[in-house]
Amino acid sequence: MLADELQHKIDFKTKPLGALGFLEQLAHKIGMAQQATSPQLIKPHMVVFAADHGIAAAGVSAYPQEVTYQMVMNFLGGGAAINVFCKQNQIDIKIVDAGVNFDFPGGLNLIDKKVRKSSRNILEEPAMTIEEYQQALKNGKSVVEEIAETGCNIIGFGEMGIGNTSASSLMMSKLFDIPIADCVGRGTGLNDIQLQHKVNILSRALEKYPDLSSGDEIIQTFGGLEIAQMLGAMEEAYRQNMLILIDGFIATVAISVLFKKNPEILNNCIFCHVSDEYAHIKLLDLLGQKALLNLNLRVGEGTGCALAYPLIQSAVNFLNEMSSFEDANVSNKE
Amino acid sequence: MLADELQHKIDFKTKPLGALGFLEQLAHKIGMAQQATSPQLIKPHMVVFAADHGIAAAGVSAYPQEVTYQMVMNFLGGGAAINVFCKQNQIDIKIVDAGVNFDFPGGLNLIDKKVRKSSRNILEEPAMTIEEYQQALKNGKSVVEEIAETGCNIIGFGEMGIGNTSASSLMMSKLFDIPIADCVGRGTGLNDIQLQHKVNILSRALEKYPDLSSGDEIIQTFGGLEIAQMLGAMEEAYRQNMLILIDGFIATVAISVLFKKNPEILNNCIFCHVSDEYAHIKLLDLLGQKALLNLNLRVGEGTGCALAYPLIQSAVNFLNEMSSFEDANVSNKE
Repeated sequence: MLADELQHKIDFKTKPLGALGFLEQLAHKIGMAQQATSPQLIKPHMVVFAADHGIAAAGVSAYPQEVTYQMVMNFLGGGAAINVFCKQNQIDIKIVDAGVNFDFPGGLNLIDKKVRKSSRNILEEPAMTIEEYQQALKNGKSVVEEIAETGCNIIGFGEMGIGNTSASSLMMSKLFDIPIADCVGRGTGLNDIQLQHKVNILSRALEKYPDLSSGDEIIQTFGGLEIAQMLGAMEEAYRQNMLILIDGFIATVAISVLFKKNPEILNNCIFCHVSDEYAHIKLLDLLGQKALLNLNLRVGEGTGCALAYPLIQSAVNFLNEMSSFEDANVSNKE
Repeated sequence: MLADELQHKIDFKTKPLGALGFLEQLAHKIGMAQQATSPQLIKPHMVVFAADHGIAAAGVSAYPQEVTYQMVMNFLGGGAAINVFCKQNQIDIKIVDAGVNFDFPGGLNLIDKKVRKSSRNILEEPAMTIEEYQQALKNGKSVVEEIAETGCNIIGFGEMGIGNTSASSLMMSKLFDIPIADCVGRGTGLNDIQLQHKVNILSRALEKYPDLSSGDEIIQTFGGLEIAQMLGAMEEAYRQNMLILIDGFIATVAISVLFKKNPEILNNCIFCHVSDEYAHIKLLDLLGQKALLNLNLRVGEGTGCALAYPLIQSAVNFLNEMSSFEDANVSNKE
């Protein structure tokens, strides 16, 4: 049995039993996902999906909508947090326009998967039509298909989209039947009054669509184009048996939709960061997962994945490179 | 004011205010320690001090004493956890024989700073004579002096020594006047009966020396040769204004001794890992410090430092490499 072989290999490394803690669980998980006692991480990639949200007009974010395209330009220029961390840890980064409300000039290193300029305002109509939603899933899938051709077997997903924590809170509330107030955080920095305003707006949105049931309906109604593309991308990454790095709240909501369809997808997922926000902690709890880092990050972009990546390498490296008690002639526990 | 300049530089990076969480505090601390708005990490080193403990004969560890020298051989062969993580993260590693109860053959890549073969059994006499203690401090200092000549400005300290959590628990109890039972953990894997035995033995040791007051007396009586050398090394690292990476419980006890003499030393310290053990959590609390990682590691050797190092690089890198709102033409918060 591979599970036992992996555990034996871990237990007989020259260290006290269990002493590498969470890294041991991670090494075991990676070995199982790759069906190998000596797993390998190949061509790590980070994909950042960007899109705008119709609901941004309702003032649910501390930042204006134009920040979405400005940050895309910043990603392409290499100046954002995710660029710095990917460069440091040798992770290839791809930026995808999933639905930014801006006409980008040609000649940029941007993957054009724009479905439309911004999702629709959910206070008036569903975020996407069924056709737009399906197109977004397909676009996300195609991004991963292309990356898979490089041999990549570990992929993280980030997002940029002013208003997308609102979309995610709505999805979480509906998916797990949790009051919206428990699903809402301060996002990128709301004060008390702004936070209450956000809760009120989102409550109105929830009341408008009382009859959603399937995960697909929920995303189509409340989600965003970058979240839908992330979903299609995660599904394809799982189909290709890649390891999937889950960043913060938004990515965790996205994987939750897939978890509801097929809980086994979590076998390939590594949860990279948990923030101090109640909703995110609650969500990981519902999925029965623990995250590698807790640095109180609130950036998004996939930064948690990029920062956690060296720890994932460490889990694989100790499994592949450390001596066993026998190899090293070290006495085991008496 | 440098503190304000650094904070301004951090705040105007293209990310929500404070959104890099703990990494922002770390970047600020490193900038202040180096008195620079663009700090640099140069030639990172890890020093692992190894020594034996007379008290090991009393059965306070789950492992036999010979594991100390066997693990030193394993370090030299590159097969231990600390080797794997230092190699991954390009940290130079030095192994120091501070007092291992073994005659190592010549020709090894081992720094010979042996004061004596093992500290004395504290159930019978102080762990070190005053002369041995002072020699150990001097030896630790000399290790750092040599490393400083390479230009190194960031250094972590690890330890290996069967019995050294006992020494550290005694030191913590005496330094902070905390009951010994609250300072004792399962070390590398004691069961309930073994744990109670350890508490009983350590209580006897405490009763034997009721009149210790200074930190120096406490280490000389209860410490170990590797802990004393680590202390001398940390003091020299601070004198040379290096950043000092603090690993687990034992290193945290060592820095606590120096903190009692001069609290400012903490300005140069980065706490890398906190375990789930009460004593370690309590100690960080007493020092007012937070650790970067919580992976439930119980290896020692400096593994927490080596694993946290990429995050420290990330803190420096975002400070030096990310665009500001102005550079990137991104709109700041409304």
